[in-house]
Amino acid sequence: MTYNDYKSHMQKLADVEYSIGVLSWDKEVNLPKKGAAFRSRQVATLAGIAHNIFTDKGFGEILKALDENGKDLTAGEAKNVALTRKDYERSSKFSEEFVMRSSQITSETYHAWLKAREANDYSLYEEALGKMIEIKREMAEIIGYEGHPYDALLDEFEPGYTSAQLDTLFADVKAKLVKFAADIRSKKQVSNDFVFQHFDKDEQWELGLDLLAKMGYDFDAGRQDVSPHPFTINFSPEDVRVTTRVDENDLANMLWSCIHEGGHALYEQGLKPEEYGLPLGRAISLGIHESQSRLWENNVGRSLSYWKAHYPDLKKRFPEQLKGIGLKTFWKGINRIEPNLIRTEADELHYHFHVMIRYEIEKGLVEGSISTKGLDKVWNAKYKEYLGVDVPDANQGILQDIHWAHGSLGYFPTYSLGSFYAAQFYAQAEKDIPNLKADIEAGDTSKLLVWLREKIHVHGKMYDANELCVRVTGEELNFQYFMDYIEGKYGGIYA
Amino acid sequence: MTYNDYKSHMQKLADVEYSIGVLSWDKEVNLPKKGAAFRSRQVATLAGIAHNIFTDKGFGEILKALDENGKDLTAGEAKNVALTRKDYERSSKFSEEFVMRSSQITSETYHAWLKAREANDYSLYEEALGKMIEIKREMAEIIGYEGHPYDALLDEFEPGYTSAQLDTLFADVKAKLVKFAADIRSKKQVSNDFVFQHFDKDEQWELGLDLLAKMGYDFDAGRQDVSPHPFTINFSPEDVRVTTRVDENDLANMLWSCIHEGGHALYEQGLKPEEYGLPLGRAISLGIHESQSRLWENNVGRSLSYWKAHYPDLKKRFPEQLKGIGLKTFWKGINRIEPNLIRTEADELHYHFHVMIRYEIEKGLVEGSISTKGLDKVWNAKYKEYLGVDVPDANQGILQDIHWAHGSLGYFPTYSLGSFYAAQFYAQAEKDIPNLKADIEAGDTSKLLVWLREKIHVHGKMYDANELCVRVTGEELNFQYFMDYIEGKYGGIYA
Repeated sequence: MTYNDYKSHMQKLADVEYSIGVLSWDKEVNLPKKGAAFRSRQVATLAGIAHNIFTDKGFGEILKALDENGKDLTAGEAKNVALTRKDYERSSKFSEEFVMRSSQITSETYHAWLKAREANDYSLYEEALGKMIEIKREMAEIIGYEGHPYDALLDEFEPGYTSAQLDTLFADVKAKLVKFAADIRSKKQVSNDFVFQHFDKDEQWELGLDLLAKMGYDFDAGRQDVSPHPFTINFSPEDVRVTTRVDENDLANMLWSCIHEGGHALYEQGLKPEEYGLPLGRAISLGIHESQSRLWENNVGRSLSYWKAHYPDLKKRFPEQLKGIGLKTFWKGINRIEPNLIRTEADELHYHFHVMIRYEIEKGLVEGSISTKGLDKVWNAKYKEYLGVDVPDANQGILQDIHWAHGSLGYFPTYSLGSFYAAQFYAQAEKDIPNLKADIEAGDTSKLLVWLREKIHVHGKMYDANELCVRVTGEELNFQYFMDYIEGKYGGIYA
Repeated sequence: MTYNDYKSHMQKLADVEYSIGVLSWDKEVNLPKKGAAFRSRQVATLAGIAHNIFTDKGFGEILKALDENGKDLTAGEAKNVALTRKDYERSSKFSEEFVMRSSQITSETYHAWLKAREANDYSLYEEALGKMIEIKREMAEIIGYEGHPYDALLDEFEPGYTSAQLDTLFADVKAKLVKFAADIRSKKQVSNDFVFQHFDKDEQWELGLDLLAKMGYDFDAGRQDVSPHPFTINFSPEDVRVTTRVDENDLANMLWSCIHEGGHALYEQGLKPEEYGLPLGRAISLGIHESQSRLWENNVGRSLSYWKAHYPDLKKRFPEQLKGIGLKTFWKGINRIEPNLIRTEADELHYHFHVMIRYEIEKGLVEGSISTKGLDKVWNAKYKEYLGVDVPDANQGILQDIHWAHGSLGYFPTYSLGSFYAAQFYAQAEKDIPNLKADIEAGDTSKLLVWLREKIHVHGKMYDANELCVRVTGEELNFQYFMDYIEGKYGGIYA
C-alpha cells in the first residue's frame, strides 16, 4: 500500500481516459461519416474500463489506508490522495451498467442534435434531450446533494460551488449589468462593419497560428486543426491540441476562438508532467479554466494595448479590407456591444445574459419545473425578455450549443465564473507585474504567462478555486472587479 | 455460456484493439514532437488491458464449452469459435514473465536498430538482434511445431503455411525467375526519366484521391492522410484509413503507394460489419491481404489497359512534365526492370529476390545454421549472388527493414505470397468477368471490385488461404500464374 501503487494505478487510469480523449478528438476532427457507430461503442467500452479501473475495490482500500495513515506523504501527495478519495467515493456510486448506458445516451443525443441542426428543427432533438435530462436527474440522485439537485451536477464542473451561490451571483449580475448594458445601448453605436468582409481562409489560418505562437503556445506539444466547434483537449501536458473554425466572411470568428482556446491550452501546457494523471496534474475547475481563456481573449485580446502591438501585422495581411480603419476604430469595433442570438458570438456584456438563460433552464429541467417538450418556446421567450431579441429558428436558438447534447448540464455557469475570475486575476497581474501594459503594447506577453504559470497553472488542484483566488488576489471571487473592468473599458468606447 | 457471451467479449476486445489502432494512427499522422513518451505509455497500457481481456480464464471456459458442445451454432459461428480457441490456446502458452521479457527485448532491439541506422553501423545492432533471435527460437519451442521451428513463427502471419512449402515455392522462383530476370537484363533498357521531374504536391494529392475514389474506395468510410511510411489501418469496416507520402521529385512514389494501400483498404471495407471483432470480420492472412494490394498495384495499376483510361487525365494534370511522352512510353517506363538495393523500391521481378534473401537468412537464424555475428557479410554476399549488386553500407543493406527490430520473423515471405496469389486471382477474374479488359480500358473497375468482394473480402476467415485459393481458382497456389503474368507483360515491354 504505497504511494507508488496509488500513483501507478492513477496513471493507468489516465492512460485509458486520455485514450478516450484521442478517440473523441479524432471524432470531431477526422472521423469519416460512416465511422460514428463503431466509434461510439469503442468510446463506451473504454469508458467502462476506465470506470472499472477507478472503482476497483483494492484501489479503494489503498486510498483509504493512504489517506488515513499516510504520515510520510508530502503535502502534495496527501492532497492527491484526498482529492482522489473524494472522487472515488463519488464514482463508486455508479454501476458499470449506468456508465455505459449514460455513454450510449450521450452518443445518441449528440447524433440527434446533429440531425436536428441539419434540419433546423428542434422536434428532432426533443425526445433525445428528454432522455438526457432523465439520466442527468438519475445521476443527481445517485450522487446526492444537500440543497438543490443541480448542485450535484454543478459540482462535477465547479467543485464546491452551489446553485445558491449562483443565484446570489446572478442576482448581482442582473442588478448591475442589466442597467449598465441598457446605459451603453442608449449611447451612440460604434461600427464593426470592417469585420464582415471577405478574409482569405489560408491567410486567416496563418494569422491564427502566429497569434498562438506569440502567446507562448508550444507547437511541439500541440497542434491546431479545424472543427465545427472550437475546443481544447489534452492527452498529457505534452500534447495539448486546439481547434478553430475559419469563416471567410467574418474575421472575428477565427480571431477570438484562437486566442480563447490558446488561453485554455496554455493552462494545460503549464501543468506538471510529473503529476500526469494525478489531481495535481489537472486543472482546478472549469471556472478557473475559463478564467484563463477569457483573460487572454478579453482582458488581453480585446485591449487597446494588445492591438497596438498586433494591428500593424493585421493590416499588412489584409490591407484592402482594413484600408482607412485606424487602430482606435478597429479596437472600438471589436468591442461593439449589441444584444444578439448566439452565445459564442455575444459581446462581453450580454454574454452573461446568455448564460443566465441557460442556467435558469437547466435548473428548471433538473428540478422538473421546466420540460423538454416545447422547450424551444421557453428559450425564445427568455431571449425576448433578457436580450430583447426574436429567435427566428431553432439553429439560432435552442440548437446552437453542443453542451446538452454532450450531457454537460451545470457547465454553462462556469463560463460566467471564468469571466469574473479573469477580471479579478488580471487586476492583480497589473499590480504584480511592473510595466505590464507597456510590455503588451510591445507585443510581449511573456511576463504575463510566467505570472499565470507561477500563480495558477503549476499548482494543478493543490488549491481549490476559492483558495486559489484568495492566494492570488487576497480575497474571494468579487463580481465588482468585472464591473470595474467593463466600466473602465466601455467608458472609453461609448463615451 | 452462449454464443452472444463469446461475441460480446470479443467485441469488447476489438474495441480496445481498435482504440490502440486510433492511437497508433494518430502517432504516425498527427502527434506533436513532445507527445511521444506519454503516447507510448498510453498504448502500452491499452495493450496490457487487451491481453488481459483475451486471456481471461472465464473466457477460455466459454470457448471450450462452445467449441465442444456448440451443436446449435451456424457454420460461421462455429468457425469463429474454433479459430478464437486456437488463438486463445496459443496465447495461453506464454507466461507473463515471457511476455514481459519478449516486450523488453523487442523494445531494446528496436532502439539498437535506430542507433545502428543513425551510425550506419551493423555492429551496434548485432548483439540486440542476437537476443531477439534467441527469444524467437524460445517462442517457437513454446508454440510447438511439426516440421521446422520456423513454421511456428510463420503461422502467426500466414496460418497453415510451412517452411517446406516455402522451400518448394522459392526453388521454383529461383529456377524460373532468376533466368527470366537475367534475360530481361540483357535486353535494351527502357527509360523512366520522366518520373523524376518536379510534380506539384497538391496536384499529386488530388490525383491520389481521385484514383482511390475511382477504385471504389469509400471516403465516407475512410480518409487519406500523409505519413512518412504509407500504411492502411482499420478501426471497423466503416473506418478504414490510408496514408501516403508525396515526393515532389518522384511521381511514382505517391502513385503506387496510393493504389497499393487502396487495395488493402478495399479488402477491409469489404468485411462484414456484423462480424466486427470476430474472425469472420477479419482478413485471412498477410499473404491474402497483400494479394489485394498487389493485384491493384501491379496487375491493374501497372497495366496498359489501366493507363489507357487514366493517362489522359494524368497528362492534363502535368502537361509540361509529360509533354511528348506517349501512353506506351509511359507504361514501359513505369514497368522498368532493374536490380537494386532497397526492397521497398524494387521492381515487380527483383522484389522476390529481396524476399528470398530474407527468408533464407531468417530460416538459417532460427535453425542456428546462420549467426547474427557478421550477418551483414552474409547479407551482402547474397545480394551479390542473387541481384548482382554491391551493398555499399549497412543502411542500404541489412539495416534497411524495421521488421526484425519489431520482432516480426516470418513476415517477409507473405509479401511474395501476396504477389503470387494476386497473379492467380487476377487470371481467374479475367476468366470470370466478361470484357474485364475493355472495362478497365474504359476506366471502370467496378465489376472487378464486386468479384473481389464476393470471392474474397466478404468471407473474412471463413476459409484459410489455401481453401480460399482452391474455391476461387480451382487449385492451390501455383507459381506458374505469376510467371505467365510477367512473361506476358514484360514480353511486350522488353521486346
